[in-house]
Amino acid sequence: MARWVYRFGEGSADGGGADRNLLGGKGAGLAEMTRLGIPVPPGFTITTEVGASWDAARGMPPEVRAEVDAAVAWLEATSGRRFGDPERPLLVSVRSGARASMPGMMDTILNLGANAVTAEALAKETGDRRFAFDAWRRLLVMYGDVVLRMSRTRLDAEVDRARIATAQRRGIDATRLGADELRRRVPDSDLDPDELAKACDALQALIATELGHPFPTDPREHLLAAVAAVFSSWDNPRARTYRRLNKVPASWGTACTVQAMVFGNLGADSATGVCFTRDPSTGEKRFYGEWLPQAQGEDVVAGLRTPLPLGKDEPGRAAESLEVRMPAMHADLVRVKDSLEISMRDMLDIEFTVERGKLWILQCRAGKRTVPAAIRIAVDLANEQRITRDEALVRVDADSVEKLLAEILDPAAPKHFLARGLPASPGGATGEVVFDPDEAERRAGQGKAVILVRDETSPEDIHGMHAARAIVTARGGMTSHAAVVARGMGKPCVAGCSALAVDVEAGTLTVTVHDEQGRPKERVVIRAGEHISVDGATGSLYLGTVPMVPAPLPREFDELMTWADEALARPGARHLAVRANADTPRDAQAARKRLASGVGLCRTEHMFFNDDRIDAVRQMILAASADDRAVALAKLLPMQRSDFEEILRENAGFPVVIRLLDPPLHEFVPREPKQFEHLSVVTGKTVRELVEASEALHESNPMLGHRGSRLAVTHPDIYAMQARAIFEAACKLAAEGVDVHPEVMVPFVISREEVVRMREIVEAAAAEVFAAAGRTVHWSFGTMIEIPRAALLAGSIADVVDFFSFGTNDLTQMTLGLSRDDAGRFLGTYVEQGLLAADPFRSVDVAGVGALVRRACEEGRAANPKLGLGVCGEHGGDPASIRFFHEAGLDYVSCSPFRVPIARLAAAQASVGKR
Amino acid sequence: MARWVYRFGEGSADGGGADRNLLGGKGAGLAEMTRLGIPVPPGFTITTEVGASWDAARGMPPEVRAEVDAAVAWLEATSGRRFGDPERPLLVSVRSGARASMPGMMDTILNLGANAVTAEALAKETGDRRFAFDAWRRLLVMYGDVVLRMSRTRLDAEVDRARIATAQRRGIDATRLGADELRRRVPDSDLDPDELAKACDALQALIATELGHPFPTDPREHLLAAVAAVFSSWDNPRARTYRRLNKVPASWGTACTVQAMVFGNLGADSATGVCFTRDPSTGEKRFYGEWLPQAQGEDVVAGLRTPLPLGKDEPGRAAESLEVRMPAMHADLVRVKDSLEISMRDMLDIEFTVERGKLWILQCRAGKRTVPAAIRIAVDLANEQRITRDEALVRVDADSVEKLLAEILDPAAPKHFLARGLPASPGGATGEVVFDPDEAERRAGQGKAVILVRDETSPEDIHGMHAARAIVTARGGMTSHAAVVARGMGKPCVAGCSALAVDVEAGTLTVTVHDEQGRPKERVVIRAGEHISVDGATGSLYLGTVPMVPAPLPREFDELMTWADEALARPGARHLAVRANADTPRDAQAARKRLASGVGLCRTEHMFFNDDRIDAVRQMILAASADDRAVALAKLLPMQRSDFEEILRENAGFPVVIRLLDPPLHEFVPREPKQFEHLSVVTGKTVRELVEASEALHESNPMLGHRGSRLAVTHPDIYAMQARAIFEAACKLAAEGVDVHPEVMVPFVISREEVVRMREIVEAAAAEVFAAAGRTVHWSFGTMIEIPRAALLAGSIADVVDFFSFGTNDLTQMTLGLSRDDAGRFLGTYVEQGLLAADPFRSVDVAGVGALVRRACEEGRAANPKLGLGVCGEHGGDPASIRFFHEAGLDYVSCSPFRVPIARLAAAQASVGKR
Repeated sequence: MARWVYRFGEGSADGGGADRNLLGGKGAGLAEMTRLGIPVPPGFTITTEVGASWDAARGMPPEVRAEVDAAVAWLEATSGRRFGDPERPLLVSVRSGARASMPGMMDTILNLGANAVTAEALAKETGDRRFAFDAWRRLLVMYGDVVLRMSRTRLDAEVDRARIATAQRRGIDATRLGADELRRRVPDSDLDPDELAKACDALQALIATELGHPFPTDPREHLLAAVAAVFSSWDNPRARTYRRLNKVPASWGTACTVQAMVFGNLGADSATGVCFTRDPSTGEKRFYGEWLPQAQGEDVVAGLRTPLPLGKDEPGRAAESLEVRMPAMHADLVRVKDSLEISMRDMLDIEFTVERGKLWILQCRAGKRTVPAAIRIAVDLANEQRITRDEALVRVDADSVEKLLAEILDPAAPKHFLARGLPASPGGATGEVVFDPDEAERRAGQGKAVILVRDETSPEDIHGMHAARAIVTARGGMTSHAAVVARGMGKPCVAGCSALAVDVEAGTLTVTVHDEQGRPKERVVIRAGEHISVDGATGSLYLGTVPMVPAPLPREFDELMTWADEALARPGARHLAVRANADTPRDAQAARKRLASGVGLCRTEHMFFNDDRIDAVRQMILAASADDRAVALAKLLPMQRSDFEEILRENAGFPVVIRLLDPPLHEFVPREPKQFEHLSVVTGKTVRELVEASEALHESNPMLGHRGSRLAVTHPDIYAMQARAIFEAACKLAAEGVDVHPEVMVPFVISREEVVRMREIVEAAAAEVFAAAGRTVHWSFGTMIEIPRAALLAGSIADVVDFFSFGTNDLTQMTLGLSRDDAGRFLGTYVEQGLLAADPFRSVDVAGVGALVRRACEEGRAANPKLGLGVCGEHGGDPASIRFFHEAGLDYVSCSPFRVPIARLAAAQASVGKR
Repeated sequence: MARWVYRFGEGSADGGGADRNLLGGKGAGLAEMTRLGIPVPPGFTITTEVGASWDAARGMPPEVRAEVDAAVAWLEATSGRRFGDPERPLLVSVRSGARASMPGMMDTILNLGANAVTAEALAKETGDRRFAFDAWRRLLVMYGDVVLRMSRTRLDAEVDRARIATAQRRGIDATRLGADELRRRVPDSDLDPDELAKACDALQALIATELGHPFPTDPREHLLAAVAAVFSSWDNPRARTYRRLNKVPASWGTACTVQAMVFGNLGADSATGVCFTRDPSTGEKRFYGEWLPQAQGEDVVAGLRTPLPLGKDEPGRAAESLEVRMPAMHADLVRVKDSLEISMRDMLDIEFTVERGKLWILQCRAGKRTVPAAIRIAVDLANEQRITRDEALVRVDADSVEKLLAEILDPAAPKHFLARGLPASPGGATGEVVFDPDEAERRAGQGKAVILVRDETSPEDIHGMHAARAIVTARGGMTSHAAVVARGMGKPCVAGCSALAVDVEAGTLTVTVHDEQGRPKERVVIRAGEHISVDGATGSLYLGTVPMVPAPLPREFDELMTWADEALARPGARHLAVRANADTPRDAQAARKRLASGVGLCRTEHMFFNDDRIDAVRQMILAASADDRAVALAKLLPMQRSDFEEILRENAGFPVVIRLLDPPLHEFVPREPKQFEHLSVVTGKTVRELVEASEALHESNPMLGHRGSRLAVTHPDIYAMQARAIFEAACKLAAEGVDVHPEVMVPFVISREEVVRMREIVEAAAAEVFAAAGRTVHWSFGTMIEIPRAALLAGSIADVVDFFSFGTNDLTQMTLGLSRDDAGRFLGTYVEQGLLAADPFRSVDVAGVGALVRRACEEGRAANPKLGLGVCGEHGGDPASIRFFHEAGLDYVSCSPFRVPIARLAAAQASVGKR
């Protein structure tokens, strides 16, 4: 029988750390911690299976309801408290928790169980009436906001009224204060209990108006509504956006955890905080965190109060550290975090609350970290022998390594220093200041580099953060929303930069620049659209644009890549080699530097656009006859030969796959009248003739047109020239003693007969060149498999070639009927609505394109057991695709030189067989 | 052990009629006739296997050579003659003969064995020196032409010199006669023997100059060279063109038959002729043929002499008939043709020669016939119980039935009569007169209708004949090249129209018009480019353009289609239903008339272009918002509803598949400034706004763009409107008691999730309409499978639909990476060079597209055993494709109403399991 609810508490739990998929990260962590004897408030988790099949219209299925009722009864018994009890009332939190962490994306309700009766009970029990009614008003506000989707502003207005009344009781005229200033002057912890009680009444009345009937008083009713809201929040717009950006499948669903409340705002001996077992920004092994005394729930991350450091080693802040203020709690916390890290074998993000001198752990999960931190932590954990080297390899998201290879502000460049905030996420960026997330998205869509500057960020800002190059906030700490999200996105972030004053309405950012002694020196006003530069590693902001340089790779990355290469050289297993796409000698050099095993794709036509060649290319294309064309080809031959010579020389000892001309000829024709005039001089034809010849090449669907080997069927002389250039270059180098391995590849084929015809052209050129040179070089012949028919007929093509190279870009376009140039209008919607699992141009479509690749590999190898198999589409640099190519049995992938390290890491990960 | 040479002679043969693939049509026919005791000169056939692997550079393989040598020795023994024998020399013919008849496309050499020695021997033996040297000079000319590829003009000039000398001996000054006139005045049979001998010497000298050494005298050497020439002629340009037009695979190769010569030019008791066992033009059961006394080889079909009738029933020509002139031979021939037709079970084309009073049969093969003749012959043979009705069904090439459905000159229209020739191939045509085949091809390529007018045609003219609407010749009979080829192509032809005088150089056709008494009345000069009209059924030519009307279907066609429908209704077998594509009520009516079983594809967008709708369509497309679009959709709804109502009404009792909007929206946007201005008035938007909105819809590869269900993912309201229109129409008809079966189909899908989304949209519309109407109608939901991914994932899509309809047009474009709009530049070359077996847009590409269709059928049916399977691409009307769809297990095909009878016949043929 299926089970829908898993309990945890009092040292035992139904689930454990391994039940992440069923209980979500939070639920599994709580169960695991309970088992480990860590102090965790008791509770229960409703599984992701319930969440995944949640139907808002139908509500909770009866079989689930029965288990929830039983779990509530158990929780009441375990905690010695009861829902609605006038003496010892039970208060619980209701939280989401998916398989993958989606911080802040879904809804949470705290203090559920509070009502008019239990607030009084709580006041009596704690002796703290303010606390008790504050708990109730928090529930009312969250319930109105999350469950009933009421206007948050209307709800907050009732509380602000209590603030004004409180201020007035103290003789302050608060009516003229702005909302932010009011909240700062009269924080929650200062509200007058009677005013709070009035606010609760007012909130109840507001909710009753919204509902059309009185607000129910029974906490059990609240619980059902809150669980429903949490499950439904899986599908809210910001959660959907987050999933799309982070490739989280919509089908996973969230779990929902109901847990007894503990309170960090129950007086001076109460507190709440967040800590990381290692530095999430650098990966350094140091205990790191923030806390706030007399605070509840989201106060630490909300940014309204600036949190205090945990350890006393923070320069100048020892006095406010937890270690000094609550030494016993600090010691408990250090013990807990050490034992948790050992048990969980990873850097952890731990939420804790101290309630009247007792430490409780509310959450523990793998901590979000920057890419350099992820690398350092994985390498350190392996060196500490907490995990194996293979585990360390798979701990690093290969895709994220791209961010490592990004750029930083040039340290040597002159800069106009503005201010320093917290170094919340490393990396450098330059861009125009934007204050509004929508505006950030709009401008980024126009290709502008933007820097989002906010007082603080919230989950509603996620799209603007995604669009921005960097994020800057005036408030909030290292664990604020802005900091956490920026690190997850791998974007630079400077948080809590208090020298900034953002005036969104005026569209200005005012910076108070301080001198070296920390005294205000000048005020700089920056308008929206003006440029600033951000250094997330130091927390510094600069005025204007600063040049960028490549980031130095962290030392640990080299160590990790050594392990990757060890894994890829391990005998007895099948490994993917990583080659690079290189169209020019310079690319080839870059690829060798990044340890590519040769060139997997050299696109000969990319050399055609050089200024000194395009004339000859155009002359060839617009030739009126074969003789005419021969003249142009004769001009191109020595140019192509010298290119090939350099690329082959650069890759001595390695294979170099050279693809013969692929794009439709009209890609090369002139566009401008001037170009036609110039060409008229070069070729001796009239402009009119040239324009007509160009127009005759127009195609309705160039993607499916006259290109690749089709050009060589109608104009074999073009491939003959290219093949001749390759073999002449190879013979020249061989004569010099250079070890060359040219692999000639023909594109866009659909039949065996066509491949045979292409091979004849290439072989004829080889025979002629070898005879003239008096020597031969070893070479091989292959074809791209990039049209569905070629994949379907791979078995018949395989024995006339030495290798296949899958062109998964075109194969994706044709298999899915998707023109990459045109898909922008709808592809995003497809991925967002789950009609396609992912963008098929980013990660190979395993179900469709993958089925063709697998079939072609199997039938190709069956027909020709020596057949080489590679891939040269952009998927060759995508880790998820590399995993698939490894499983499909390919020999190599080829990607841009830039992505070679990523591909090597991903290949090693596939090889050690995890992730 | 493989055997390369098959002998026949003296009543026994190594092969027989069943060995057509191995021996070619000619070789198999000769073997079969020999076995039947028909008088056939002995000989042997070198197999098609030798021909198919013929390598001109390598020559005859030794193992074949050995068998040929042995066969020559046997032939010498059998005939009692020897190659080069000075007393009884052996003379042979060397002819090609492929599996499929390719009349006149390959090379032939006659009189091989003649040389200086054997010519004298032959002169002595026959007592006819002219004959003997004529035989030798014919060999020399053919050898020079065919084997050595010398200029035919230079060779003929030597013979013409003998003609002039002959004339001069008779006191005629022939030097001023044109070549044609000279040949008419001094035919071959009149040449002076001594002049002939001199011509032979001159020809030998000419050949020696060409060769660079003396012409060899040994007939065995000639034989090897002639066999090599015949095999090589398989690959000459006109043979390749013929194969492409007639879908004959290049891989088949030709056989080569070497046969003892018999001579129809050995005096007054010799003759040669060609006959058909039934009328090849009408199919009427009457013995029909032509002959020439004192003639050899190709004289009958060459058109230089007008042949004589065989039977005495030809009005006014009894005296010159074979029946009167050689009654015994005629009686022999009638016996032979009767026994052959019974044995071969088909209408036959028989070549015969009478040598000094003895009848020899040289060839017998299924006779080429017009489409009406093919139908009549098949039906008559079945009614005569020579073949079964199922055999009769498969005897008719379903593809050719299209020609039956072509048009004829309107009998009621006024016409300006010019002349009457032989009714060589029926049908009517109107077009501009063209005298040159290249010009005919060029003008036809520009979309002009052309009529090719020639003195006579030759195999070199084949491309021009293919391009022309009709062919007219001034010379030649019913079996002339023009007549045979035109019948094969199904084009109208008037042959031997002696009132015409063609002056190619002047570019004029002069017609001598006769009055009813046959007296010349006037001369009309027609210039190239002027129009004439041709009636191939009567042999009449008319000046100017005559309106066309549909041809009445022959009575026998109805009988054949009755048998087809019987076959399609036969219990115990699986049959394909034939539906029609119908976009308008008019199409639907046409389809019902041709007995289509419902509509397989109604393209809703084809109704969008109507003048009264396009405004609303454009307003919808260029809408700036959903509200804006709603206004336009509301206008379209009643229009679509009324279309659907009419189409469903027309197909009461039958299923109607209605496809929701498919093409990209930019297909509908205005192109002309005027249209924009008009639309600006209609929509109230500025022209600039409309132009910008139109431009925003531009796509790089519209074939792979934002179309089909993708439109409904981003704009679900469009499909919702269309579905609503369908269900409202269906409910209205159902209320009237009309039996409606709407089948709603969505195009261009790639994933199950997408199909589910589409189904939701359609189901919501159905639920709403049914609720409002207070009734439901039975309907089904299906998807096109036209993108490779949909075919690959068919197993996952099948259980959320009721049917699949394969869109093989798009599936072909994507599977082969071929844009139909752009493939013209190279697709012909692919087919011609054998890189693709056939034009994949005409006949489905079984290896590629077919593999996807098979897979989708299998996996679809496995997932949903009730799944309906159909096809709605243009392949649905192509017989070869229909055969494949039958084998793949489809339920129905859908094609244009026009092709429904063709598809029904092809489906019946597939069902009776032959062809």
